[in-house]
Amino acid sequence: MDVNQYMITLGEQARSAATAIARASTQDKNKALLAIADAISQQRSALYQANATDLENGRAKGLDAALLDRLELTDARIDTMIEGLHQVATLPDPVGEITNMKYRPSGIQVGKMRVPLGVIGIIYESRPNVTIEAASLCLKSGNATILRGGSESIASNQMLAACIRTGLAAAGLPETAVQVVETTDRAAVGKLITMPEFVDVIVPRGGKGLIERVSKEARVPVIKHLDGICHVYLDRFADKTKALNIAVNAKTHRYGTCNTMETLLVHQQVANEWLPELGEAFAALGVELRGCDQTRDILNSIHAATAADWDTEYLAPILSIKIVASIDDAIEHINRHGSHHTDSIVTENYTLARQFLTEVDSSSVMINASTRFADGFEYGLGAEIGISTDKIHARGPVGLDGLTSQKYVVFGNGEVRT
Amino acid sequence: MDVNQYMITLGEQARSAATAIARASTQDKNKALLAIADAISQQRSALYQANATDLENGRAKGLDAALLDRLELTDARIDTMIEGLHQVATLPDPVGEITNMKYRPSGIQVGKMRVPLGVIGIIYESRPNVTIEAASLCLKSGNATILRGGSESIASNQMLAACIRTGLAAAGLPETAVQVVETTDRAAVGKLITMPEFVDVIVPRGGKGLIERVSKEARVPVIKHLDGICHVYLDRFADKTKALNIAVNAKTHRYGTCNTMETLLVHQQVANEWLPELGEAFAALGVELRGCDQTRDILNSIHAATAADWDTEYLAPILSIKIVASIDDAIEHINRHGSHHTDSIVTENYTLARQFLTEVDSSSVMINASTRFADGFEYGLGAEIGISTDKIHARGPVGLDGLTSQKYVVFGNGEVRT
Repeated sequence: MDVNQYMITLGEQARSAATAIARASTQDKNKALLAIADAISQQRSALYQANATDLENGRAKGLDAALLDRLELTDARIDTMIEGLHQVATLPDPVGEITNMKYRPSGIQVGKMRVPLGVIGIIYESRPNVTIEAASLCLKSGNATILRGGSESIASNQMLAACIRTGLAAAGLPETAVQVVETTDRAAVGKLITMPEFVDVIVPRGGKGLIERVSKEARVPVIKHLDGICHVYLDRFADKTKALNIAVNAKTHRYGTCNTMETLLVHQQVANEWLPELGEAFAALGVELRGCDQTRDILNSIHAATAADWDTEYLAPILSIKIVASIDDAIEHINRHGSHHTDSIVTENYTLARQFLTEVDSSSVMINASTRFADGFEYGLGAEIGISTDKIHARGPVGLDGLTSQKYVVFGNGEVRT
Repeated sequence: MDVNQYMITLGEQARSAATAIARASTQDKNKALLAIADAISQQRSALYQANATDLENGRAKGLDAALLDRLELTDARIDTMIEGLHQVATLPDPVGEITNMKYRPSGIQVGKMRVPLGVIGIIYESRPNVTIEAASLCLKSGNATILRGGSESIASNQMLAACIRTGLAAAGLPETAVQVVETTDRAAVGKLITMPEFVDVIVPRGGKGLIERVSKEARVPVIKHLDGICHVYLDRFADKTKALNIAVNAKTHRYGTCNTMETLLVHQQVANEWLPELGEAFAALGVELRGCDQTRDILNSIHAATAADWDTEYLAPILSIKIVASIDDAIEHINRHGSHHTDSIVTENYTLARQFLTEVDSSSVMINASTRFADGFEYGLGAEIGISTDKIHARGPVGLDGLTSQKYVVFGNGEVRT
């Protein structure tokens, strides 16, 4: 079959399954999630085999170690997938929640009901565990899903797709509620993101190149973030212990995550006292520092930051440091060079904390906390499909609620407009 | 200046003003709204003159009576604009509202803060009063705005733009926070909807042709609805008085509005008893009826509905009537032929009411109330910029909240990830 026609078939099947999955009871959805977990557990050896094929092909294609690592399904990763399915089953069902029903002077009572978005397309790289993560969140939120993983993970994904179908069938739900694209033809992505008649929203997960391409070419809304250029601003009224702990944690807790600090801003009045200690702490942890001229007057041995550094997401043990004259300069720097992801101020000053909270235009704005907290689990969403730096629809970590919409509901007693 | 360059200039100015308007105090925004009202009041005669020019040019161009009527600024319409500005000034400011701050096990406290979207582009037809409506809502919600009204209203809009600038200046806000496109070149619209770097969302208001074009060509999110094909379903368990009142009101209260009923669905068990009475009521009000075969067995003299009728928004005293065998058939018809706008069931049966509420996939779903209630004023939003039938971002009547987003805020006390 021609790839366009194949994608249209998947789209039609998804659109048709969307109605059934939107109406599915909480019980049936949870039953499906647990049955998928059971199927994965039972198919563990078949999964290893499929994954071994992917790994072998990946090595033959010369994939680098990092990509091969992400592709691999270890025992621990399979356990995590199974555990994740159980966790999503325990989350409250967002669908059907009615809120805010208020009487109006006309006599009608008006509020909102949470409803699924419809069909969600997920595009991701060769990480088979994302197949299960994404499928479980979309299923629980009552959406049909079309999953398109990286071509190197095709055998693993096909095996996982079989487990998903088994689970859906066990709960009496349509097997087409979750479909995995079973072709590695790249044209499949191009079609998936340009079928507004079948797909309501696209969530790209992966590298910047992928997300840029999807955003540019999509004809449906995209929930995404491109970069995570996060900042910590150490204010002159900061508590020194909190300041140093947060700065070190935000950079060094993990290097490859989008909520990791990439630029540290320090108020000039505390820079002389705190930067030497920070410099030592970072040096001990193997972090390369790049500073503005003022920073290098204090930390003489570090490299100079170039203009490009302020706009770079290192995803590596590298940190740029800039000394600022005021909170206004800090906010200006963040709004100009940041990626509207996550930024934190460390301060004990109420008015400055409030100013930062209000004026920093990012999906998460923090006071006295590490930027590393910006994720769905830490925020209590239970899980997340990704973090959005857009303002339309969902902003910040996107959990089950972010995969839904709200319609108005009106309770009347025969009221008419007069 | 070349029109593309002109639009880029407006875009740059809007983007730059957006920061100031997002941070503006409630007091300053209200001051601006009232000062715009004052300016309009003072410029009443100049407004009439400008509008007379538009009307004269419109007549010379051969505009029809309906278009000329919408174009005209009567005394009453100017009063309504002034009153509208005062009303928006009294609405609560959505910006900065912090909600749902909850402690997490890590010690951080997480919630959301409501923030403006940024720059909103409004594209509308030659109705100068929309200029003020849209400007006031965008201003109150902290957004910068670029307004592009129909070319026939250019003189009126330029005069209103001057009043808006006067008001903004009186409150110390940037005059570029609200800009009216002062060229009638149609290429301006094409540019406005394809500048994601300057415009965050587009709200098209007007006829289907305009909205279809904008949706198709826009490179930024669009808040819109295309059609209002609304239904009332008279269930067999309906109270007859409520049923007849709601059916008549939903069709005849106003014919040209998007929340007017276009198709009436009647359960077969009550059709014989109720349709003759309904037929008389509609005939007395001059409504042309078009029925399915079963309906015409009861109302012999009416026209047959063709397949196209079920998909038509008449915006006129015409109603299609279909007899259905069950609520399932009614819901199936609505989800297939409706426009996901507003649909109402009349019933006294709890379980069927609940089924309708859950399964009808529309932006407003009602029980025992006229579809005519679907608007921002009746829902208590204070005002609306339009009604969205999309599921992404805002659904149903879009008020001040719909022109905002929510960012996460985190209050910590030095917490780090471990």
